Amino acid sequence: MCKKCMLLLFLATISLATYAQERPNIIVFLVDDMGWMDNTVPFSGKKQGFNFIYHTPNMERLAAKGMIFTDAYATPVCTPSRLSLLTGMNAAHHGVTNWTSPRKNQPTDNADSMFLPANWRYNGITTGKPDRTSFAATTYPQLLKDNGYFTVHAGKAHWGPMGTTGANPRNLGYVINISGHAAGHPQSYLSEEFYGNKPGKNSAQSVPDLEEYYNTGTFLTEALTLEALKALEFPVNQQQPFYLNLAHYAVHAPIQGDDRYLQKYIDAGMDIREAKYATLLEGMDKSLGDVMDFLEQHHIEKNTVIIFMSDNGGLSLSSQRGGAAHTQNLPLRAGKGSVYEGGTREPMIVAWPGQVAAGTVTHQPVIIEDFFPTILEMAGITGYKTLQTVDGISFMPILKKPGFKDDTRTFVWHFPNKWIPRDGPGINYCSAIRQGDWKLVLHLRDGRRELYNLKQDIGETNDLSKLNKEKTDELYKLLVTKLKVWNAPMPVLKSTGKPLILN
Amino acid sequence: MCKKCMLLLFLATISLATYAQERPNIIVFLVDDMGWMDNTVPFSGKKQGFNFIYHTPNMERLAAKGMIFTDAYATPVCTPSRLSLLTGMNAAHHGVTNWTSPRKNQPTDNADSMFLPANWRYNGITTGKPDRTSFAATTYPQLLKDNGYFTVHAGKAHWGPMGTTGANPRNLGYVINISGHAAGHPQSYLSEEFYGNKPGKNSAQSVPDLEEYYNTGTFLTEALTLEALKALEFPVNQQQPFYLNLAHYAVHAPIQGDDRYLQKYIDAGMDIREAKYATLLEGMDKSLGDVMDFLEQHHIEKNTVIIFMSDNGGLSLSSQRGGAAHTQNLPLRAGKGSVYEGGTREPMIVAWPGQVAAGTVTHQPVIIEDFFPTILEMAGITGYKTLQTVDGISFMPILKKPGFKDDTRTFVWHFPNKWIPRDGPGINYCSAIRQGDWKLVLHLRDGRRELYNLKQDIGETNDLSKLNKEKTDELYKLLVTKLKVWNAPMPVLKSTGKPLILN
Repeated sequence: MCKKCMLLLFLATISLATYAQERPNIIVFLVDDMGWMDNTVPFSGKKQGFNFIYHTPNMERLAAKGMIFTDAYATPVCTPSRLSLLTGMNAAHHGVTNWTSPRKNQPTDNADSMFLPANWRYNGITTGKPDRTSFAATTYPQLLKDNGYFTVHAGKAHWGPMGTTGANPRNLGYVINISGHAAGHPQSYLSEEFYGNKPGKNSAQSVPDLEEYYNTGTFLTEALTLEALKALEFPVNQQQPFYLNLAHYAVHAPIQGDDRYLQKYIDAGMDIREAKYATLLEGMDKSLGDVMDFLEQHHIEKNTVIIFMSDNGGLSLSSQRGGAAHTQNLPLRAGKGSVYEGGTREPMIVAWPGQVAAGTVTHQPVIIEDFFPTILEMAGITGYKTLQTVDGISFMPILKKPGFKDDTRTFVWHFPNKWIPRDGPGINYCSAIRQGDWKLVLHLRDGRRELYNLKQDIGETNDLSKLNKEKTDELYKLLVTKLKVWNAPMPVLKSTGKPLILN
Repeated sequence: MCKKCMLLLFLATISLATYAQERPNIIVFLVDDMGWMDNTVPFSGKKQGFNFIYHTPNMERLAAKGMIFTDAYATPVCTPSRLSLLTGMNAAHHGVTNWTSPRKNQPTDNADSMFLPANWRYNGITTGKPDRTSFAATTYPQLLKDNGYFTVHAGKAHWGPMGTTGANPRNLGYVINISGHAAGHPQSYLSEEFYGNKPGKNSAQSVPDLEEYYNTGTFLTEALTLEALKALEFPVNQQQPFYLNLAHYAVHAPIQGDDRYLQKYIDAGMDIREAKYATLLEGMDKSLGDVMDFLEQHHIEKNTVIIFMSDNGGLSLSSQRGGAAHTQNLPLRAGKGSVYEGGTREPMIVAWPGQVAAGTVTHQPVIIEDFFPTILEMAGITGYKTLQTVDGISFMPILKKPGFKDDTRTFVWHFPNKWIPRDGPGINYCSAIRQGDWKLVLHLRDGRRELYNLKQDIGETNDLSKLNKEKTDELYKLLVTKLKVWNAPMPVLKSTGKPLILN
């Protein structure tokens, strides 16, 4: 063979191999109901409070390899976040503003004396023709799959009710689905309870697909991890890029103890509910470590992105958590269900060897719908078409430069629903907007507005709306404009039978 | 670029493309409990009896494209067949001679006055360390997967109980599992009954993974077909070869009517149970047509093998079927559970455009364990290592030459178990062997032997053992030798507490 030919063939081979390697594997490690402080990583700038109680060494291990996001946001409850992630749309835009029932046509709002339920899309996402109860959108796993990514979902899905296409992750771009379905929490974390599948004892929350582990003492978090990693073996062996959505049911209620870790928290004198909660966290963290170990064992850690995230703030209702209500996310105010920071700010970490500098911290805010364009950019997928207008913005510039700053961008939360029977702090019928360090909270019942400077007052204790009417008005107008553009669902006034109008 | 270089690159490209195309896609379309006569294909040489009652146009369509096997065998009940398929071992060799309970450590034998249960492997296959209740073996889907095949299981698995690795098809070589688990039949075929998952109504037989179809009027057979074909989209788009194990729960009990087809059978005056059974068959046949349509729509029908098979003979117990007991498989004797032909002879068809001549018929016997080496040969996989000694023999030579004849090979059935409370014809504690046209039936209770010439007497009505003692002895010795070599499970005599010994 002539030298030119050899070189040509050599280059062709290299080029193919490089192409195969260039596309990174991507893992979103999504925790359920995990608060900003529910770990040992100093997201607040220093270790404090619960940072000293829990054990999450693998989150620290991940943070040491990548970037901490101190101001990462989701929505106040789960389905809206999960669908914003899936579609890149703000919850006020896709319209699924509350959690979806596993049963079709059943809004989950509590009854209220002032409002009828908003016209939100309580049947979630559909791959068919949407009606006023559902919406259609192109998902990023579908785009990844169409571009050759082997896409795996494991754990909680909660994208649509039984009897709809949204109930099946395999309709939404996932090649493989393990235990994801219509439900938003597990009936049980325990193998002894068949994860809720004991004959005659099942519910819509029984976790499917894990019969192998029944009565083996395998906690749900562990079983999902084993199954998720098993699913990666094929693409790893075939040198296909993969996307893994490891969406743990933990640390959502029922708060059951993981016996592998429980005793030390009891010995430390913790409230039994809090001790069990701590074990849910530690089991989740162990799963993260197992994922990292798997990548190292298969020598793919350098070409794999891990994005750690939670879907809403930590639960702070005293019925299920120990301690005084709404103290569990301190220094943040309130918790799950609230538009205050305790309900929306999340522990987020991104590690990508060679692409993201290790041990870095960014204070630039990001929000859950930003994952959509970011993940596609990471995968090198451009020029894609979507049914929906994507609201999210790629955070790749931040990953490249932790000091990246954009104080002009607005972040919107909208919860025109009634999550719990009695209103809590920022819980039920509230909206909010952040721009730079400023945050406005709007109470939909009475139009009351609060203004906070998060840089000076992360706990949202000092309402500046009276002192700074200009900023209050400015943010209010920005919020109302966004909600109108998105045709956001609004609570319906019982007095008029018409949706609330913001002026 | 020089002409030589261009040619070289061109050849390299062609070679890669050819390699990708050369490996055929393979589909095993496995029906449950379907008898030899439960269709409109003239397996007996002419249309007769039930051939005129049922509607299976797609089986005829498949037969017209390929080869009919008139003498294809499985075992008398399901799990043994399914594990012989998976491992290439005769049931007497792998030791799972009866159906496995979905519950661990629970032999399914009925109580008997003479025998204690045989030492059969009632915990099925394991990927861990086998004990006396289970066995380990390399599966062909694992070998296919290791060689780049995208392997999909949909439907009934029934390879091992809950709490064991055998309960999870993803441990046994399948990249994707849809609705396969520990159970051997569906709690319900009906979407209105959530396929058995209605809250508080579940059992070990509730079918997982199909929430999307709840209350949509989608019959189980249809839902499985839709999901199986959905799973093929990724490998088809990626130009990866695939293997699909579409193992329908149909036509196993509960015999529920498929409303799409029921009325015409009722109008024809059929017994309601038989009318419902006919709808299970027609729905299964529709699925086969949908699979064939899918291949054509994706232009891959020419590079895809379809093997149609059932796992045991048609159910012939009068408690669940219409008509007199054990008449449902006529002209064959008896039915499911029996070592007579009605219990073991199956409707088998193989179509492979360009490789198997269309519209051909073979009378050479084959047996379910032959699928293992055949499928691997079809995939071009050679020199593979297995934990087990494979008993099956590839039937590729038959596919190449329908007239292929080997009268020396022996075929063995061994059922040292008690399937039903009262013995039926060839049902409970029976073994059998076939060589050429001769077949010996051995009753383990009393050592009684029967000899039949299947060519002259397909219905096994004329026992020739007294007339031909030489052939009887010869076959008996062959049978006993095989069972000893395989260390086959034997029923345990209550009188001695020891396994029955054949001399």
